Amino acid sequence: MTVPEIDPFHTVTLSTLAHRLAADGRSIIHMEFGQPSTSAPKAAVARAHHVLDTDPMGYWESDPLKERIARHYADSYGVTVKPEQITLTAGASVALVLALTSCFVPGMRVALARPGYVAYRNTLRALHMEAVEIPCGESVRFQLTAEAVAALSPAPDGLIIASPANPTGTILSAEELSAIVEVCRARGIRIISDEIYHGLSFGEPAHSVLEYDDTALVVNSFSKYFSMAPWRLGWLVAPEDRIDAVKARMGNMFLTPSSLSQHAALVAFDCHDELDGHLETYRRNRDLLLEALPVWGLRHIAPPDGAFYIYADIGHLTDDSLAFCTRLLEDTGVATAPGIDFDPVDGKHFIRFSFAVSTNRIREAIRRMTPWFIERTAEAKTS
Amino acid sequence: MTVPEIDPFHTVTLSTLAHRLAADGRSIIHMEFGQPSTSAPKAAVARAHHVLDTDPMGYWESDPLKERIARHYADSYGVTVKPEQITLTAGASVALVLALTSCFVPGMRVALARPGYVAYRNTLRALHMEAVEIPCGESVRFQLTAEAVAALSPAPDGLIIASPANPTGTILSAEELSAIVEVCRARGIRIISDEIYHGLSFGEPAHSVLEYDDTALVVNSFSKYFSMAPWRLGWLVAPEDRIDAVKARMGNMFLTPSSLSQHAALVAFDCHDELDGHLETYRRNRDLLLEALPVWGLRHIAPPDGAFYIYADIGHLTDDSLAFCTRLLEDTGVATAPGIDFDPVDGKHFIRFSFAVSTNRIREAIRRMTPWFIERTAEAKTS
Repeated sequence: MTVPEIDPFHTVTLSTLAHRLAADGRSIIHMEFGQPSTSAPKAAVARAHHVLDTDPMGYWESDPLKERIARHYADSYGVTVKPEQITLTAGASVALVLALTSCFVPGMRVALARPGYVAYRNTLRALHMEAVEIPCGESVRFQLTAEAVAALSPAPDGLIIASPANPTGTILSAEELSAIVEVCRARGIRIISDEIYHGLSFGEPAHSVLEYDDTALVVNSFSKYFSMAPWRLGWLVAPEDRIDAVKARMGNMFLTPSSLSQHAALVAFDCHDELDGHLETYRRNRDLLLEALPVWGLRHIAPPDGAFYIYADIGHLTDDSLAFCTRLLEDTGVATAPGIDFDPVDGKHFIRFSFAVSTNRIREAIRRMTPWFIERTAEAKTS
Repeated sequence: MTVPEIDPFHTVTLSTLAHRLAADGRSIIHMEFGQPSTSAPKAAVARAHHVLDTDPMGYWESDPLKERIARHYADSYGVTVKPEQITLTAGASVALVLALTSCFVPGMRVALARPGYVAYRNTLRALHMEAVEIPCGESVRFQLTAEAVAALSPAPDGLIIASPANPTGTILSAEELSAIVEVCRARGIRIISDEIYHGLSFGEPAHSVLEYDDTALVVNSFSKYFSMAPWRLGWLVAPEDRIDAVKARMGNMFLTPSSLSQHAALVAFDCHDELDGHLETYRRNRDLLLEALPVWGLRHIAPPDGAFYIYADIGHLTDDSLAFCTRLLEDTGVATAPGIDFDPVDGKHFIRFSFAVSTNRIREAIRRMTPWFIERTAEAKTS
């Protein structure tokens, strides 16, 4: 066995180029990463100021924050989660590593949707687990189905689900989610549910897997709805039989997350007015893009139910999404993410737009991209 | 293969009891954990305030901080480290996970000193690597020797070294460190050096492994000398052949550390007056304890060269260090760490004192512990 090679995250390459162009004086619109351009809620920032002035701080796990998160599961989903089931982590990334290492061992097989968040596949690989990719096309809104999970042979040891999903923003309906849980229960498949985009839904709110399955692990964080990505705070909900395994790994491999971030996050739970305002911005941005895309000739998409992404098929324009996104950036100053980061097979003809920026920026991005896409379409037709 | 069981960190149990006693109104002196009781440097806190007020922040890796750390290697050790060799992490814990997963695969054997930091052994276990423990007794100041590494059969794949060490604070001399490097070079053993206590030396400064070995990986953080433990910021220095592996794992498994902590840490590099003041406090505390220990009958120790720990043999008083530390805490309110966290074999008759508290607290701790240890000694003699 050799140390496995992990694919680079190509969007980082794009973003580095974007920052270099900006340093050269170009006007850049950042739609490449999945992070809100807004800061943490004002009250959370005020709390951080106060703690900095009054508390020398130490390694810490905030019991009040765990209790507040537990209450959130009762309030939002009607499910009982005990504070001791919750582990606070330095972002959802650490929560995922904890979940995987606490449930699976090298050689085990973990299924996931393709397209999907690049880090699922790469983290599995880094941990010597096998990523079993389930191709999910436009016909199923790029989402898992119970049917596809049932058809896996042999049954995998685990399944990662994500709803709303990255890169598509599509949500699993209550019916589909509970059907997937049923299949997994019958086949002995442990579910890890990434619920990091919960709170960001444009229609019905997303359901938590915990409404249907008390053996699942849930990954979440303060990075998206709470607009606190750079604060690096997430959490993992573990079922009773995995609590000890998770806590032991956290204490040894990661210790604790930032104390200041924990203080601020507790306050963020009471900032719904401000945070729901961001959601309204995303809704406007989504609607503007959904209006623009057909004009650009991009018709193969699944309109996002949540999160802040649109994933679009650009197969009529290119089969090299990295080169395509690079040219788009160089020509218009709009940075996007190439599909190859989310789908190693079909991603070469997809592009992801992240619209977690101000509506003014989205209007400007559309103004720049509209003639550019029309030109590309004309070019493709004549070649 | 099943998910491996990881030992709990017994000091956490002690600390939880200490906090419960404090909540009941007892006066507690915390000497159980390895964290400074001082806050981050004033200028670093001021910088954090400024950034909170002026910068919405995003996911970020600070190039200026990487450059500053690279310069630190030139200034302090006379070695050339390029900024691209440095990866910023959420604490030294993440740096260690990155180092191990970038160099070794499940089943590989990694040697380390016993006694040693509990998380080395447990993290190796969680990653399905084999911890090869090298017993290091009082005669070698509980430190590795080139001789002991040369005697390992078969040669391990890796070696973790720590100087100043936890739980003992002993430092490897330049001669011994370079001899260990020579043995590892000859036997093809990759070195990971935990240099987290650098900057905290009471005599000669500790040497970096990089002065002797440009294939080694170095783990470090802002938690100890810089007094920023709760900010959760560390770094890993990787050799040329491991940079890509480390960066790919960081980006996928952990993303980035806290942006605010990175801003504050850059300023901390210019706060030597304040930070060296903490070192003088530790020096006074060390001297007071080294005076008190023989009075208590604790004569089997290695006087610490650095860090803020004393590891003492209490074999004449107990063979159950957890019970012993629990009774010490209940009787005197002084919380300490039982040796079993650092040494699964001989730790049952060792205790670790962490003296990273104010000198007044150390004086008070000595006032309380002196009669208690004298009583225990008398008790042991008559039983």
